[in-house]
Amino acid sequence: MSNTFNKIFKVTTFGESHGKAIGAVIDGCPSNIEITENDINNELKRRRPFNNKYTSQREEEDKAKILSGVYKNKTLGSPICVIVENKNFSSKEYLKTKDILKPSHANYTYMQKYGLFDPRGSSRASGRETIARVIASAIAKKILDHYKIKTIAYIKQIKNIKANIDHSDYSSLKENTYNSPIYCPDIKASKKMESLLDKTIKEKDSIGGVVEFAAYNMPTSLGEPIYDKLDARLGSAMLSIGGSKGFEIGKGFESSKMRGSEYNDLYIFENSRIKTKTNNSGGILAGISTSELLIGTVAFKPTPSILKPQKSINLQNKSAVLALDKSSKHDPCIAIRASVVVEAMLNLTLVDFILLNKLSAL
Amino acid sequence: MSNTFNKIFKVTTFGESHGKAIGAVIDGCPSNIEITENDINNELKRRRPFNNKYTSQREEEDKAKILSGVYKNKTLGSPICVIVENKNFSSKEYLKTKDILKPSHANYTYMQKYGLFDPRGSSRASGRETIARVIASAIAKKILDHYKIKTIAYIKQIKNIKANIDHSDYSSLKENTYNSPIYCPDIKASKKMESLLDKTIKEKDSIGGVVEFAAYNMPTSLGEPIYDKLDARLGSAMLSIGGSKGFEIGKGFESSKMRGSEYNDLYIFENSRIKTKTNNSGGILAGISTSELLIGTVAFKPTPSILKPQKSINLQNKSAVLALDKSSKHDPCIAIRASVVVEAMLNLTLVDFILLNKLSAL
Amino acid sequence: MSNTFNKIFKVTTFGESHGKAIGAVIDGCPSNIEITENDINNELKRRRPFNNKYTSQREEEDKAKILSGVYKNKTLGSPICVIVENKNFSSKEYLKTKDILKPSHANYTYMQKYGLFDPRGSSRASGRETIARVIASAIAKKILDHYKIKTIAYIKQIKNIKANIDHSDYSSLKENTYNSPIYCPDIKASKKMESLLDKTIKEKDSIGGVVEFAAYNMPTSLGEPIYDKLDARLGSAMLSIGGSKGFEIGKGFESSKMRGSEYNDLYIFENSRIKTKTNNSGGILAGISTSELLIGTVAFKPTPSILKPQKSINLQNKSAVLALDKSSKHDPCIAIRASVVVEAMLNLTLVDFILLNKLSAL
Amino acid sequence: MSNTFNKIFKVTTFGESHGKAIGAVIDGCPSNIEITENDINNELKRRRPFNNKYTSQREEEDKAKILSGVYKNKTLGSPICVIVENKNFSSKEYLKTKDILKPSHANYTYMQKYGLFDPRGSSRASGRETIARVIASAIAKKILDHYKIKTIAYIKQIKNIKANIDHSDYSSLKENTYNSPIYCPDIKASKKMESLLDKTIKEKDSIGGVVEFAAYNMPTSLGEPIYDKLDARLGSAMLSIGGSKGFEIGKGFESSKMRGSEYNDLYIFENSRIKTKTNNSGGILAGISTSELLIGTVAFKPTPSILKPQKSINLQNKSAVLALDKSSKHDPCIAIRASVVVEAMLNLTLVDFILLNKLSAL
Repeated sequence: MSNTFNKIFKVTTFGESHGKAIGAVIDGCPSNIEITENDINNELKRRRPFNNKYTSQREEEDKAKILSGVYKNKTLGSPICVIVENKNFSSKEYLKTKDILKPSHANYTYMQKYGLFDPRGSSRASGRETIARVIASAIAKKILDHYKIKTIAYIKQIKNIKANIDHSDYSSLKENTYNSPIYCPDIKASKKMESLLDKTIKEKDSIGGVVEFAAYNMPTSLGEPIYDKLDARLGSAMLSIGGSKGFEIGKGFESSKMRGSEYNDLYIFENSRIKTKTNNSGGILAGISTSELLIGTVAFKPTPSILKPQKSINLQNKSAVLALDKSSKHDPCIAIRASVVVEAMLNLTLVDFILLNKLSAL
Repeated sequence: MSNTFNKIFKVTTFGESHGKAIGAVIDGCPSNIEITENDINNELKRRRPFNNKYTSQREEEDKAKILSGVYKNKTLGSPICVIVENKNFSSKEYLKTKDILKPSHANYTYMQKYGLFDPRGSSRASGRETIARVIASAIAKKILDHYKIKTIAYIKQIKNIKANIDHSDYSSLKENTYNSPIYCPDIKASKKMESLLDKTIKEKDSIGGVVEFAAYNMPTSLGEPIYDKLDARLGSAMLSIGGSKGFEIGKGFESSKMRGSEYNDLYIFENSRIKTKTNNSGGILAGISTSELLIGTVAFKPTPSILKPQKSINLQNKSAVLALDKSSKHDPCIAIRASVVVEAMLNLTLVDFILLNKLSAL
Repeated sequence: MSNTFNKIFKVTTFGESHGKAIGAVIDGCPSNIEITENDINNELKRRRPFNNKYTSQREEEDKAKILSGVYKNKTLGSPICVIVENKNFSSKEYLKTKDILKPSHANYTYMQKYGLFDPRGSSRASGRETIARVIASAIAKKILDHYKIKTIAYIKQIKNIKANIDHSDYSSLKENTYNSPIYCPDIKASKKMESLLDKTIKEKDSIGGVVEFAAYNMPTSLGEPIYDKLDARLGSAMLSIGGSKGFEIGKGFESSKMRGSEYNDLYIFENSRIKTKTNNSGGILAGISTSELLIGTVAFKPTPSILKPQKSINLQNKSAVLALDKSSKHDPCIAIRASVVVEAMLNLTLVDFILLNKLSAL
Repeated sequence: MSNTFNKIFKVTTFGESHGKAIGAVIDGCPSNIEITENDINNELKRRRPFNNKYTSQREEEDKAKILSGVYKNKTLGSPICVIVENKNFSSKEYLKTKDILKPSHANYTYMQKYGLFDPRGSSRASGRETIARVIASAIAKKILDHYKIKTIAYIKQIKNIKANIDHSDYSSLKENTYNSPIYCPDIKASKKMESLLDKTIKEKDSIGGVVEFAAYNMPTSLGEPIYDKLDARLGSAMLSIGGSKGFEIGKGFESSKMRGSEYNDLYIFENSRIKTKTNNSGGILAGISTSELLIGTVAFKPTPSILKPQKSINLQNKSAVLALDKSSKHDPCIAIRASVVVEAMLNLTLVDFILLNKLSAL
């Protein structure tokens, strides 16, 4: 269960990696919003950046098909179902290793929980599942546009290489991000990371990474105390992405080393609006947005599937070696492609809170 | 809205810090579970450790009153309402500064969102709200006991002082934690932290900290893909605690610096059970528990209310200085007391997944 | 579980009839709405009309105590907890018969489901539970007032005596209803029903009845297809009241005997608004309100507890006779007092849809 | 919003009558349950009984396509998406009358609520939407089979012709129901109803009807007080079906005319089990199943679309006549086909409560 995300702009997703289709039903989208299959396809393309070696690819593009909820390019207020059919994949490689517990992978826990596992691809635990999140986000973005909110996510760090990010201008940040083959807006850092990734691929290994996300032009009042604080729900959204292991808002773990007198964001009144001199809070106070830049990070573990052989056990509890074939396709660093999903989850979460906040006062 | 936590073992909490009472309604607790007011009071006592200088105190103890759902010390299957009356508090100090925006505090965002704020105490954003979480956790613990699951949370770090934790034995870890006036199980580190806190108090300041949590004797299969993964829900639970700014499961942010070949937890079969040689995953794979030790951390910012005067603005957008009176009571480090709440949220989350998992198969 | 009603204006209720208190937590009430304990007490008084023989009474009044969510008589946007303490009741009579399965009463099914039953009063299945619904409705009414929506419920029928209702004017309908000791606005019918009730009481028996409800000044657009149609949710609301066995909207069962050409409500445009010539639909089309009078009925079975001895079995499956003592207090006709609860459930349901409808379009 | 049904066995449906597809996502179905597209198609066939004049038909069969959640004919525990593509329909007739408010039809309220309406077919308010409910029910039935629960729904009454139903044996009741072209198990009554329908069709009119439903081999303990009582949820389920206007459980409205001493179902102990001598309660006490036959009725209004011309107004608020073309297809009595949907909703509701009841005790 639990394949529905959000409380108002409800997104229910479905689909295994090697099943017939991946899709989403969006229920709770307001009526009269313009949306086309093209809008969705544009977002889906960002999941396969540059068709490069840093992200594994199926051969043809994912094409969205709107099955319901839209008439003459406008949302009807009824549930919107969009699917992407799964094509041109081979399950052969997966079936060969289906009886081995794959280290740090879903097959063990799924088998324990459900008593069976679709061994073709990673089933429901596949990265392909995130197609559905990106579909829903493409629709959510239309609502964010209406409110002038702009969002982005990018690679902040791989191993010890940290990107230096200039947050002053959204457009340049976006352009720089999209210009990098690994979605890292700091060109110098991007180059270094690419070299590291090249080395990692050559060594049949994988590597972790940190994604940062930001939302510009935030309104105040988004977030619902006590249990749906904006940061709590963002945390949940991000930690639901496969491979994520950590989440921070604002100064995050750094704040645990600071004193109140250093950390506190002091209020000032400037250009007819209330601002804070610093933004250690990352745009959230007491679980509610302040209108400062919303900013946080998500840590991703290295891709569990590597070409290096790994010792494990099989379904009969006997020692076994997991040796994946060269032909099997795995990203060397899931954080790169996950950055697109981080942005999607940010979009989905913000839209839900925009709608929820309509209910705070009559 | 959003004052209900969990999906099955549903906890709805209420109460402002200086209102008549703080309380919780637990709906979805199975019937025939033994519970007394004493059981709850014992947990509540842990929120006021040692009555020492490191945690601010109201004068008398918080006493739980069970209003419904329990008959002859057994749960009826009907909703359990428990309240703690608020007594012996003074709102005077708060009312003096009620027109000033308090840096990194709830009053600004609450006023923006709701158009008004109860200025006595911190209203619903007060730490006192967590009484309700501890109440519910006291009941949840009875169910965890039934399944032999044991949980704990403690101070892992304050500023740069890191505790060295031995996880091999639950009982000693618990004993050591409770023996420290700041709930830090590493005695040496605890002493150093206490000195740092003394200095911080003297300097009218506050400081952040990191809490670690762990669950022993975990079963497999807890967690509901895709959006209620165990780690996603734990993240949400922890980030809903006032002052938390970061969350990690297993190796967390450290994993972003690791390679797959280092990070992956290799399976072995030992003593008739499937285990992993390492536990970088922190006991969760693909959002589902593995039966290894469940472990993670939560970062807390420094207490926003400090005795040092702070520049701010008032409700008329004019400059103002927030100068809190010596008599006002604030913890120098919210992480200490928050550790009890972290454990409570862990307990509540685990119980929900234990119940949810009954539904995975017929 | 399932003690929460509504999706936005969420009402969680608790309390057994002979426990310490009955109460409700309302989460999702917009901020800045005026409410006092008096407002609530006025509604509670209507559950004990005239202190007459037609409705059983505890000796003193139920007094509401607001524990949270309201500051200076305004809602804060945080959860509102209101309780009524249970006083002056005796459980003796109940304990005497606790080992007998009571015909058409809760004790058998509760024992089966939960493995135990609080034998004092009817526990959670008591009519006293509805106090919590009336509390929440008192707050909901403030929101309906804001939108000028006016609601009422009254006795439409007892046995074969049908009241003749004039719906043309809300105020007179309300006045007539409140003037009847049994809440029947047709004076003639009321008198006949009172005689029938006198006879029923004398014969140590009870009787069923039908309650009609209506909402005036309805806006269009309330109701959420497909599964939260206004009529579906009203049906659920009414059928959750103890003793209800049937529900109709508009012509209800009568419509099953009609032809389309008779039944269909034809549109006309009159006084600058779209109306229908008839209102067989009862103000709802395709699950959404039309702005015509919202009208429907609820059937109630006779009170199961009667003074006439009844054959039954005991917990050991042996024959037993249930002979209730004269001192035990039971309404001769639950429909009378239930009419107040029907109105409360109507109010709660409408408020939820008013809030939900804010989300239909941007 | 609100296109999800149930709390555990969650069914989210989508699709407009003349859109690309109608479908359902079932989330919360336990794993390891056998299901094939054939199982679903068999249920879908029952929505087009006998291809006769009493139910309007599209030309070819509806074919289910399972997109996800099933591997080698077994449920995976992940969400199951099933669609039926819409084919061979013409929207011409609908588009001709799209600017006229159709009496007792969805187009007025949908336009009011959403600001637009897909004029092809009846969009989301079409009877075709119920395909999705039948799909989900086909899966639910597998779980009911596991628990030996057997369900049925049939025509109980059309106009004043009442069927005489023998409930003693499920198999014969089912056989008789399926043998009638209008799903009425009383052959004599069926013949009379058929004549009435013939006459109604000839007169370009439609007619209402009453459907009765029953569940055999019920366990005790299904139903969740206070707001998810079994009868409340059944009422909501049935009233969410297009055209339903009334609901009864057990004696329903008849019970409002009875005395307690007549109505009460007396307990007896027979053949090693607790039974009641009568079953006026219809198998539910205090919202929880008793294990007696679960029985109730649903009233349906006449089909709103009739070939007889009807006076109305158009979108410019001017008088207009709605004259539907002979080629337009409408059932003369929606109750007939709705009986299949009533059974589907019964199945879905029961499965949810079976799963929910796993949570009542540890």
